[in-house]
Amino acid sequence: MQVTELVEQWQNLGDDTRMDAFRALDREDAEVFFASLPARDSGDFLLLLPTVERRTWMRLMPPDDAADMLQEVDPEDRAALLSLLDEVNRKEVAVLLAYAEDDAGGLMSTRYARTRPDLRVDEALLYLRRQAKEHLETIYYVYVLDSEQHLLGAVSLRQLFSAAADASVRDVMQDAVVSVREDADQEVVSKLFRHYGFLAIPVVDFEGHMKGIVTMDDIVDVVDEEATEDAQKFGGMEALDAPYLDVGFWEMFRKRAGWLSVLFLGEMLTASAMGHFEDEIAKAVVLALFVPLIISSGGNSGSQASTLVIRAMALNELRLRDFAKVARREMAAGLALGVLLATIGMIRILVWQQVFGGYGAFPGRVALTVGTSLVGVVMFGTLTGSMLPLLLRKLGFDPASASAPFVATLVDVTGLVIYFTAAKVFLGGHLL
Amino acid sequence: MQVTELVEQWQNLGDDTRMDAFRALDREDAEVFFASLPARDSGDFLLLLPTVERRTWMRLMPPDDAADMLQEVDPEDRAALLSLLDEVNRKEVAVLLAYAEDDAGGLMSTRYARTRPDLRVDEALLYLRRQAKEHLETIYYVYVLDSEQHLLGAVSLRQLFSAAADASVRDVMQDAVVSVREDADQEVVSKLFRHYGFLAIPVVDFEGHMKGIVTMDDIVDVVDEEATEDAQKFGGMEALDAPYLDVGFWEMFRKRAGWLSVLFLGEMLTASAMGHFEDEIAKAVVLALFVPLIISSGGNSGSQASTLVIRAMALNELRLRDFAKVARREMAAGLALGVLLATIGMIRILVWQQVFGGYGAFPGRVALTVGTSLVGVVMFGTLTGSMLPLLLRKLGFDPASASAPFVATLVDVTGLVIYFTAAKVFLGGHLL
Repeated sequence: MQVTELVEQWQNLGDDTRMDAFRALDREDAEVFFASLPARDSGDFLLLLPTVERRTWMRLMPPDDAADMLQEVDPEDRAALLSLLDEVNRKEVAVLLAYAEDDAGGLMSTRYARTRPDLRVDEALLYLRRQAKEHLETIYYVYVLDSEQHLLGAVSLRQLFSAAADASVRDVMQDAVVSVREDADQEVVSKLFRHYGFLAIPVVDFEGHMKGIVTMDDIVDVVDEEATEDAQKFGGMEALDAPYLDVGFWEMFRKRAGWLSVLFLGEMLTASAMGHFEDEIAKAVVLALFVPLIISSGGNSGSQASTLVIRAMALNELRLRDFAKVARREMAAGLALGVLLATIGMIRILVWQQVFGGYGAFPGRVALTVGTSLVGVVMFGTLTGSMLPLLLRKLGFDPASASAPFVATLVDVTGLVIYFTAAKVFLGGHLL
Repeated sequence: MQVTELVEQWQNLGDDTRMDAFRALDREDAEVFFASLPARDSGDFLLLLPTVERRTWMRLMPPDDAADMLQEVDPEDRAALLSLLDEVNRKEVAVLLAYAEDDAGGLMSTRYARTRPDLRVDEALLYLRRQAKEHLETIYYVYVLDSEQHLLGAVSLRQLFSAAADASVRDVMQDAVVSVREDADQEVVSKLFRHYGFLAIPVVDFEGHMKGIVTMDDIVDVVDEEATEDAQKFGGMEALDAPYLDVGFWEMFRKRAGWLSVLFLGEMLTASAMGHFEDEIAKAVVLALFVPLIISSGGNSGSQASTLVIRAMALNELRLRDFAKVARREMAAGLALGVLLATIGMIRILVWQQVFGGYGAFPGRVALTVGTSLVGVVMFGTLTGSMLPLLLRKLGFDPASASAPFVATLVDVTGLVIYFTAAKVFLGGHLL
């Protein structure tokens, strides 16, 4: 099995097959394999190895990766694995473990290249060459620190490389460096990377002391993670926080059952609403026939609108203050889409009546009821779907919770009220 | 206004405000600003400038960014902007424009650092220092090419930096280099970056000639883009391919109206299905009351299942061959979730009947009908939602098209059939 394949298939293999495939790799491939394994899998892998080998591989891990890995394993295994490190590394990893996993501090590595502002460029390069022998995360950005570890500036290896040998680091460095606080959320960090396209961003404490760097490769994982969380919330459930096949059956049940029950309880209001119109249904059973069509149209248009707004907010394309602009736009879109569906729906009813019959004595009025309701329901769905994520953000919740099922549930009850009200207007005195 | 703020707010500002804010920046900030603008905005920005300035800024753009920008502007502006470049750059940009935007070739930059295998390390560093004066995308990976531009290997600046000065490049370089073909899809490229965490990946043609490099910062955009496309498809519409506020009203209408109409036509089958059970509804109007509750439960559980499977497939956590495993798991989850909702639903009906009445002479049998249908509908929804993305992939379609609204529509008709069949079983001879 090739390295890539082994990394991808790791989740799906039994322990014996895993070990056989791993043993078949030569040393160089084995190292690539180990470095490519996600944090979750590298813990499993280490625990499969005999203790002596475990120590060797564990010590190959950069401290930030080791901390990520340890956060994924069971607490009892964590202590055992941590004890395999030498003292310096153990301390470093322990510091990283103290940060929340989703903070800049939890993402960062403490192995960055550093220099002093008063060195000459050739001295800085020499010092850097010495640091390059350590396991640095990157040597491509060199951070300029004073004797108290305050971050003064940064200089890229590229800049050092093309500067005059006798210039001072202070003259070459950029002194306006974008940095993040150690307690910044990973979403903030990933937005900075998106904006600037840096390879690394330094992490500082509230006094400006340099604590570490976050590198771009950690951020691709964060972007994936955030998109998955948003997608799962949008699908109407709690975020799983782990690969689908890794999550235990009952944990997954719990994460799905919560929202599903809440939505179910909300949807029960439709039974109450329908109960309110029981007499109308009894008089004109034809009305019941279009109930699923009406409410699903509201749900579908709401789902479109909330997807658009949630995603635009995730990518910073929309702010709270765009509220009115979005509302105007979605009202107009809802009207146009509603008129379209109403036209299709009314044609369908009139043609069906010609061919098969069955819609009673007033097919024109039934068509008018359905058509008018569709315009109302689609407009209401579109507006609810687009405003809800903005409202949730305003109230401090995650906009992605304005899920397709949540919006649909909200729209269903209103849809029924709109529909039966339209029925009273157009069919009152005829069927009702 | 600060640079970051100006970049973020660009979309929301009028032309005059844009220019005023830009003119207020000092030269250094202005360059950071220009480099941080997304491709779409930098075209707008250039077109705002007087021609002389336009030329200066245009020439600051690396060819891959210039090509991305040109792909976003109107065809007539494209030619005008392209003509501002000097001949060498114009040719380079024209080559990049010929690639599909979503291919490796469309993402790549032609400005990479190169060396020959037979140079000594100190010679290579000297040659590299000369190349560093050009606008290279990165000097951190140096690609080793023979005289015919075949890619032989790669060496990082870090490796060169810590190697002995008199070693040959051939001895220091890695000869097994991960590369992509120029016609590889950007999704393939982004998966490689995810697996290996490289800063750059070389792009080759089918004969192994080096064509360019794709860098990590291009990939963060790709990851975002793919997640947005998937989210929009999942929300039941065509992918917009542009920021929400940038898309013209009628284009957005078109992208939403297509799927909405298709779903509406599909949902019309519910009217036919309900028509089929018109007699039952007429006899037992109480049955109509629970129709929205039953079908929405199927839709919601289907939406959860399809989100999980689509996202797991996007992240490569699931393959087609996991089909049976997913089916078993989702059947079990559907059963457990169905029993949960059935329990809540039956309790609701029996309690309501005690307190308010209104469910007729056989509330126990009504509750049994609703409960049994809920188990059936939720199981069917879960199974459909989880299998549909796998089936779509199998047939060569995008799994993300198994959207919440699409699954809901599929499940609605079946849900009605399950419900009214259960009604005949439990209420036959009583209400029916």
